[in-house]
Amino acid sequence: MPKLDFRYLKDFISEEEFSAKAAKAEEAHRTLLTKSGAGNDFTGFVELPEEYDREEFSRIISAAEKIRNQSDVLIVIGIGGSYLGARAVIELATSSLRNRLCKNGPEIYFAGCNLSPDYMAEIAEICEDKDFSVNVISKSGTTTEPAIAFRFFRELLEKKYGKEGAKERIFCTTDKARGTLKAVADKEGWETFVVPDDIGGRFSVLTPVGLLPIAAAGIDINELMVGAAEAKKEYENPVFAENEAMQYAAARNILLEKGKALELLVSYEPSFTQMAEWWKQLFGESEGKDGKGIFPCSAIFSMDLHSLGQFVQDGTRNLFETVVRFEKAQKKLAVAFDEENSDGLNFLSGMDMQEINEKARLGTLVAHTEGGVPNIVITCEERNPKEIGKLIYFFEIACAVSGYMLGVNPFNQPGVESYKKNMFALLGKPGYEDMKAAIEAKLD
Amino acid sequence: MPKLDFRYLKDFISEEEFSAKAAKAEEAHRTLLTKSGAGNDFTGFVELPEEYDREEFSRIISAAEKIRNQSDVLIVIGIGGSYLGARAVIELATSSLRNRLCKNGPEIYFAGCNLSPDYMAEIAEICEDKDFSVNVISKSGTTTEPAIAFRFFRELLEKKYGKEGAKERIFCTTDKARGTLKAVADKEGWETFVVPDDIGGRFSVLTPVGLLPIAAAGIDINELMVGAAEAKKEYENPVFAENEAMQYAAARNILLEKGKALELLVSYEPSFTQMAEWWKQLFGESEGKDGKGIFPCSAIFSMDLHSLGQFVQDGTRNLFETVVRFEKAQKKLAVAFDEENSDGLNFLSGMDMQEINEKARLGTLVAHTEGGVPNIVITCEERNPKEIGKLIYFFEIACAVSGYMLGVNPFNQPGVESYKKNMFALLGKPGYEDMKAAIEAKLD
Repeated sequence: MPKLDFRYLKDFISEEEFSAKAAKAEEAHRTLLTKSGAGNDFTGFVELPEEYDREEFSRIISAAEKIRNQSDVLIVIGIGGSYLGARAVIELATSSLRNRLCKNGPEIYFAGCNLSPDYMAEIAEICEDKDFSVNVISKSGTTTEPAIAFRFFRELLEKKYGKEGAKERIFCTTDKARGTLKAVADKEGWETFVVPDDIGGRFSVLTPVGLLPIAAAGIDINELMVGAAEAKKEYENPVFAENEAMQYAAARNILLEKGKALELLVSYEPSFTQMAEWWKQLFGESEGKDGKGIFPCSAIFSMDLHSLGQFVQDGTRNLFETVVRFEKAQKKLAVAFDEENSDGLNFLSGMDMQEINEKARLGTLVAHTEGGVPNIVITCEERNPKEIGKLIYFFEIACAVSGYMLGVNPFNQPGVESYKKNMFALLGKPGYEDMKAAIEAKLD
Repeated sequence: MPKLDFRYLKDFISEEEFSAKAAKAEEAHRTLLTKSGAGNDFTGFVELPEEYDREEFSRIISAAEKIRNQSDVLIVIGIGGSYLGARAVIELATSSLRNRLCKNGPEIYFAGCNLSPDYMAEIAEICEDKDFSVNVISKSGTTTEPAIAFRFFRELLEKKYGKEGAKERIFCTTDKARGTLKAVADKEGWETFVVPDDIGGRFSVLTPVGLLPIAAAGIDINELMVGAAEAKKEYENPVFAENEAMQYAAARNILLEKGKALELLVSYEPSFTQMAEWWKQLFGESEGKDGKGIFPCSAIFSMDLHSLGQFVQDGTRNLFETVVRFEKAQKKLAVAFDEENSDGLNFLSGMDMQEINEKARLGTLVAHTEGGVPNIVITCEERNPKEIGKLIYFFEIACAVSGYMLGVNPFNQPGVESYKKNMFALLGKPGYEDMKAAIEAKLD
């Protein structure tokens, strides 16, 4: 399991303060597992690693194989929870440069996650002269960003391969019965996978939403689920002292009460960048409501020690850090000996970079805690699918518990609707005519 | 010039509060321009757009041409201010997918900005079977991350091209006279460019530090400097009411005094992602000291409206947004008409995506300000080199003024040393032996 180290909180949280939260954490955990709290319709992610649909899982593996055989490029269309998890796992398990190094399956690009014409035109340019497939992920099929992108890429596919050919290249992850995407998919004969009713977008990475693109990237999704299932056993433990997901949730809540309203998720591995984006949605959208919540930020060190490091060391004392560390690197690379030693680095020669990276981490840990920044350390063995599955499940449980402890519904996101309604009004969407003038007046 | 819109602060800052800051802003601005404040040795960036070395500028253009002719790949080695500016301008002026779409000059990768063996091995893998050159950027030549990377890539170059061949492929941006990198470069006969003494890393993008990689990417650096020079004229205006850089600085300080300790820099263009990273260093490292400062974060909308949007709309009210918007996109892309209209998008058919993106921005502006988040809007015409030059200079002046208003030295970064010292001790660097045991004890 991910191993948590709370020792570097000792100057910020006393043992009494910590254990005083045990009862509340256990209650929140019980509320989650007994499905008796707010948003209980969306807690399917808890059982998921054991109770997923095996038949569909096999179809995902077959579809991924088909995509890999027929495609140089896979376009994944989705926004928010519909793409963040897949992008995160693919990069973390392989590389932030996977598309460039690609040796295992198609290049994978994400579209329908913004409204930039430049970005979409560039993705289309990549598809020119390449064989490509599309995985469109949308529960309803009407969310603006992915719907525009899908209309566009469907047309490209049908022009290139004809309607019949395109049929073999469109994979829909959508509602099991309702919604326009499901209806069109059934009519057109596209293969469909299910976005479960009881799992919200930000908790959906281990459903077909995340699994199909991840499998298409050549990553062993069975291992991912095995890791998550092992984590399920670990984190269903109702005892605070034995459950580090609860402890992480408790520490976060105490730190927030002490004015640490910003959590910086740090890794020393560049391939963790997108995983941090996934984490930001998970915690930010689950807790940021009712005027509450810790703002989730991220950084890659030692890189960002040379940009955000000054602030973390010595700026406004309103933040804490959670560091996710991987014990083993995928590659070995030792510093060479240089006769002239003009750069003075020979004291490192023969040392593996992973060891240097680890010393940078430890040096930073001491510097930042001495600078007044509480630090939580999460150690994972390595960034392989099984360990990633454990880490995902750990964060999901911790997030739900943390949200309940904070007193919010961790499973809704009412605030996301506000911009959409205003945008629809400004775009003249049928049904929103009445709002248009009012919004425009506010802009003057 | 970038056009600032402060209208959406009206519910958060009164006109009286704003104008009450005029005198302090004007004083900070005068302190900067007369070089009479803390860190005055590092204010060379103010005159830079007019007073740079023209001979060296020509050499940069020639070196860039040489790099472009002889290289499929350029490896830029540097950390913090030594690479953030170049990476930011290259992506913003071209695309976040530039390396994939590359039609104008070599692929460009950044190394020496972290200690990950996996990352470095991957960059090396990209260089296999490719012709490549290296631009190493380090004032001293002894900063750990870039020094390790340069030792590594120099060896690769010399193995592949021999010592003489490598000589044509190594470009050093370093101190004009001192430091180990300068000494080695002179001895080996590598071409060198100067990191000015009076400009700190985070203000160095318009010096050779940024200009050589930017020019190698095929971007017109003359236009970049023309834009910056125009901005210089604009922002040397000492009158608060006529100088939007001062006004931005004032607004930020007032918002911080009102408890808005977090600034979210937002753009609706994915190619802005790295520019936001540059901005984070600029403001975070300049202001984050003495227990003060606004924590700099960033987001790309509408993408991150589906991750951070919930928090921004409805979470802890400790943040404000600064939105950088580009009026013109580089490409046009209209939504097609679809006879069946199953996705219900025909109300958008014929509309260019840039217009839809703009409506999303306006809808969000209304939603977030109504949700209690102050918004500042910065409008740029388009993301071309000249406009980018203006924006960079605007932010640099605003940052210096803002730092002086806050009462800090905006040009030092003492906190960055702490982790380095600890790391050196843990690594057994000669001279740090005494610290080692003490640091290790703190880790137990």
